[in-house]
Amino acid sequence: MNIGRSAGFEELYGPVLGDMPRVEAAILEVGNVPFPWLSTLVKHVLGQTGKRMRPAMTLLAGKFADYNLDLLVPMAASVELLHTASLVHDDTLDEASMRRGNPTVNQLWNKNVAVLFGDYVFAAAAEMVSRTSNVRVMRLFAQTLRIICDGELAQNFAAYQWDAGRDQYFQRIGGKTASLFSMATESGAALSGLPEPQVQALKRYGHSLGMAFQVADDILDFTGEETAMGKAVGGDLAQGTVTLPAIMLVERDAKGNAVRRYLEGGRTAEDLDTVLRAVRESDVIERCYEVANRFRVEACQAVAGLPNAGARSCLERLTDYAMARHS
Amino acid sequence: MNIGRSAGFEELYGPVLGDMPRVEAAILEVGNVPFPWLSTLVKHVLGQTGKRMRPAMTLLAGKFADYNLDLLVPMAASVELLHTASLVHDDTLDEASMRRGNPTVNQLWNKNVAVLFGDYVFAAAAEMVSRTSNVRVMRLFAQTLRIICDGELAQNFAAYQWDAGRDQYFQRIGGKTASLFSMATESGAALSGLPEPQVQALKRYGHSLGMAFQVADDILDFTGEETAMGKAVGGDLAQGTVTLPAIMLVERDAKGNAVRRYLEGGRTAEDLDTVLRAVRESDVIERCYEVANRFRVEACQAVAGLPNAGARSCLERLTDYAMARHS
Repeated sequence: MNIGRSAGFEELYGPVLGDMPRVEAAILEVGNVPFPWLSTLVKHVLGQTGKRMRPAMTLLAGKFADYNLDLLVPMAASVELLHTASLVHDDTLDEASMRRGNPTVNQLWNKNVAVLFGDYVFAAAAEMVSRTSNVRVMRLFAQTLRIICDGELAQNFAAYQWDAGRDQYFQRIGGKTASLFSMATESGAALSGLPEPQVQALKRYGHSLGMAFQVADDILDFTGEETAMGKAVGGDLAQGTVTLPAIMLVERDAKGNAVRRYLEGGRTAEDLDTVLRAVRESDVIERCYEVANRFRVEACQAVAGLPNAGARSCLERLTDYAMARHS
Repeated sequence: MNIGRSAGFEELYGPVLGDMPRVEAAILEVGNVPFPWLSTLVKHVLGQTGKRMRPAMTLLAGKFADYNLDLLVPMAASVELLHTASLVHDDTLDEASMRRGNPTVNQLWNKNVAVLFGDYVFAAAAEMVSRTSNVRVMRLFAQTLRIICDGELAQNFAAYQWDAGRDQYFQRIGGKTASLFSMATESGAALSGLPEPQVQALKRYGHSLGMAFQVADDILDFTGEETAMGKAVGGDLAQGTVTLPAIMLVERDAKGNAVRRYLEGGRTAEDLDTVLRAVRESDVIERCYEVANRFRVEACQAVAGLPNAGARSCLERLTDYAMARHS
């Protein structure tokens, strides 16, 4: 990873940038196993350049009290490992062939290896968090894993339901995405010994940031360029996942909407195109960004009262970044 | 579950039999979720009658010092949940349609739901162990999960290798089976505050019992009745898993053996039949039982020095049961 050398990350990760290589080393340590086939797998998946936004958030959340890297580094690594394990299983279930510009595990090996390897990374994440010897964050880890699975299962069972509505959508993305962001900040804050009200503030920050992040991501699925995203536009809907832009279309015309026609019909490319056009030709995208921005503002408000202006302004800048990152 | 009403279990679980319903209740609590689709899944899988041998071992291991059910019950439930999660993923990867006489999750729903649901049960197991608020057993849980995944991945990568040999076999079953048995006893002993040498003795007991159990299970795949086992005889080999009976055949004739012919050839039913016949017509099964029995004796020796004759003789009887259970 070359986060240390990218100018943009200096502004984002500021006071913790210099500590990110320690997190990276802890992540890659998972590959130090005596089985060559396993170490190859680990290096393939964990060595890929991600932005490491979640572990950076853990370190930043630790900056408001006792910044103890012996606890924060394994915690941050655990957050990234948990995220990675979810991605490996997601890609397997979606039969995705590429991730971050590289072939997926299910593509290079096979589906069975990918399921087992995802399990292995979940276990490595759990082992990493146990290095903190802190019962609270170990329990938080387990709860978060359960909430993520809940969210993923909910998405699976809600597939192709064109009329599921906003509440179910927010609950789902709260589970599958925002829970990990809030774990990232809550754990960093708790490990640094911050008073409970401030831990809760950083937890709310993480949750709201995660919600903004996911709404922005779901918008991009309708507006993004295929090459930049590495996946087809409208891919979520094609897989039956009804996200906020589609939900807003449905809200405007519950009976005759294009989303329903697509999902209840033969799911033709032509019908999908009609949905994409209907989204783009309306103000749905603008309204979705308003929703994302409300979450972004909530995130900033949550940390407004915290001391340490340096770490706090990084957290604030991260909220802009989370909303803009692919566009 | 009706363990409490089966006469056979009284002898096996003796002093902890009356506490097993509390473990059962903790396991089923996982199904208390506000999503009907999830609670249906949980009840389908966790409500099935198993022998609950592993959680009983946790309670028995807790009988040698401070028998505190507030810690031992969630620990025992966690052991069983971890076991169940592994089974759900195993069945999914093997595309098995039946388990314990009931259709599998992958059969009733689909492969994707089964993978996610297995993840969910892993998470529930991790949450359950966190109820002990004991860092040691929480860490042990994470390490065990990792070792199990290691063993499963190793089995996957070693598939169809007819010449892998005993060492690799013992390492593999140590990971995928014995690690969970040793976690069951180590955790119960540690939570009851037993001195470390005795915790280690109970850990060794669990490991050796697990090895005996798996060797006996692998023998049954060659000798069992199809109906009693609910799966086809020779099923392991047909899936490319080379177990001790096949390994012994290979040892006797490295070049011209029937196992190699089957795995390197077209894997015809006829060639599989030749392997099964070669095993049955030799003394391989007898030799395999000798190996299993050595592990069984090791298990008994490990706990020979422990006080509390009641719990100890249950543990001793369990070693017989583990070797005989299906035959």
